[in-house]
Amino acid sequence: MSLIDLSKQVALGVDIGGTNTKYGLVNHRGEILEKGNLKTDEYPKVEDFIEALYNKVMPLILKHCGHRHFDGIGIGAPNANYYRGTIEQAPNLHWKGVVPFAEMMTKKFEVPCKMTNDANAAALGEMMFGAARGMKDFIMITLGTGVGSGIIANGQLIYGHDGFAGELGHTIVKPGGRKHWSTGSEGSLEAYASATGIAITAKKMRVEFPDSMLNDYPEEAVNSKVVYECAKKGDPISIEVFRYTGQKLGEAFANFVMFSSPQAILLFGGVIKAGDFILKPTKLHMERNLLPIFRNKVKLVFSELDEADAAILGASALVWEH
Amino acid sequence: MSLIDLSKQVALGVDIGGTNTKYGLVNHRGEILEKGNLKTDEYPKVEDFIEALYNKVMPLILKHCGHRHFDGIGIGAPNANYYRGTIEQAPNLHWKGVVPFAEMMTKKFEVPCKMTNDANAAALGEMMFGAARGMKDFIMITLGTGVGSGIIANGQLIYGHDGFAGELGHTIVKPGGRKHWSTGSEGSLEAYASATGIAITAKKMRVEFPDSMLNDYPEEAVNSKVVYECAKKGDPISIEVFRYTGQKLGEAFANFVMFSSPQAILLFGGVIKAGDFILKPTKLHMERNLLPIFRNKVKLVFSELDEADAAILGASALVWEH
Repeated sequence: MSLIDLSKQVALGVDIGGTNTKYGLVNHRGEILEKGNLKTDEYPKVEDFIEALYNKVMPLILKHCGHRHFDGIGIGAPNANYYRGTIEQAPNLHWKGVVPFAEMMTKKFEVPCKMTNDANAAALGEMMFGAARGMKDFIMITLGTGVGSGIIANGQLIYGHDGFAGELGHTIVKPGGRKHWSTGSEGSLEAYASATGIAITAKKMRVEFPDSMLNDYPEEAVNSKVVYECAKKGDPISIEVFRYTGQKLGEAFANFVMFSSPQAILLFGGVIKAGDFILKPTKLHMERNLLPIFRNKVKLVFSELDEADAAILGASALVWEH
Repeated sequence: MSLIDLSKQVALGVDIGGTNTKYGLVNHRGEILEKGNLKTDEYPKVEDFIEALYNKVMPLILKHCGHRHFDGIGIGAPNANYYRGTIEQAPNLHWKGVVPFAEMMTKKFEVPCKMTNDANAAALGEMMFGAARGMKDFIMITLGTGVGSGIIANGQLIYGHDGFAGELGHTIVKPGGRKHWSTGSEGSLEAYASATGIAITAKKMRVEFPDSMLNDYPEEAVNSKVVYECAKKGDPISIEVFRYTGQKLGEAFANFVMFSSPQAILLFGGVIKAGDFILKPTKLHMERNLLPIFRNKVKLVFSELDEADAAILGASALVWEH
């Protein structure tokens, strides 16, 4: 076997969402050489989707490196199973049941294909190219419409025995608490700390406090962005919405820390734009609920990856994961 | 290097408790060739303890295998740190501060020495010699005076970045709940699910229900064993004590499962003698709080190791851990 010039090798990173699919060709340094989009929901049949992706991507691969230097495909997708290479019962996708997606991709592209859920992919991306470079133990939390997570311990993603580990957004932070709009569980972290949860908290609080600036907006316009705008203008109720959210986050983080003792918790997603409004109470309540041996050791860090690229980089990192 | 006859190799397993230290010579098949005891609290100076242990153990090693086949020492101890080989600020030991125990043992015995806390050691023991043989992802929970835990993921113990991972007994299951007698935290699992916690629950409930059999005992005699005796005789309040305890355990287990997706949760320790009184509500509330993808997958299993030997076997397993 001849020596391989690593600098020439590329991976394809694909981030599949309900509406949009983003893809990019990534090299070993985490540079995105080319990127593009595909409308996921325009392809009710998964075979057609793969065909369309192939036709878009293959010319780029041939242009940049030739098939010989194409190492493989990494995919982040909702309800993706790492071990089986499947997408299983994804509620937001047209493709129903259990789709053997990795196998179909490998057949088409003739390279290995690995997949995991989007938050796990983001954690790998942070470890290889982002704020977690060199860390062997950290937890990635994505605070967006939902709350996702990826856990790295001993330098490896924790997949669990069935490939579904790391659903920290669905852990219960308040037994018997707020009912989750989709899972029906009571008091899960996602019900409070997601953008969706923050909007619910804000809508409740503005009724209790008629003076709040939040009442200047119509019901349907109250979202986490509006709460942030009002908090910046000094509205105490909006500030309290983030404080309450941060308390729930911090309590959850304390439990996570006593589980896997990470060096850092990395935060990613739209909600973290609220900055100190949410970060300070999160930190306070995390520390308060930790055993002394864990206190003042765990960093809360914002992601360093560009939000638009993180999912692609993370997915591509699957190809080079050990 | 000549071939080594593995069947001849032995490890020394040592389980250090506040009052007693147990030790045993263990071979590769998990057979304890010799075992013995030492009173920990008779040695206020750690040097004297090591000297006494050496004088007891060395003749046994020479008798069984000679130093050439002595692979090393594994130690389970309270507040032991795996990475540093230290015992740190252990409240129940005479040896104060940070004790470089592994280094001192290696100097004395002239073999490698590894240490971790007792629950981690028990998890390793189960993986190598007990009910978790062949499992790569499981969680060990010890329900005794306190609640300990050891987490195995990808076939490895999770130590975390600082060696203190796996303090699941101190995770909060009820924010703002029962104050822990020693840590001061509010609503930790240990405050409810340890033998100590069960006694507290029983003492509260028997005041509320004067008819309960639990009132036949003097205050200081009410412990988890008495609650079990009364439950067996059909006392509904005692049965309720275990149901309540099981609910808290089950809620906590659901969160653990969504973290690392284990194949099984192994239970060990005096409290599990309550059998179905605690197991059934635990299972019910675990399943109820899980996302559907995790349901009916995780086994709750009782330890297969003899309680008297488990700690020694677990500690010895550290020597052969990869």
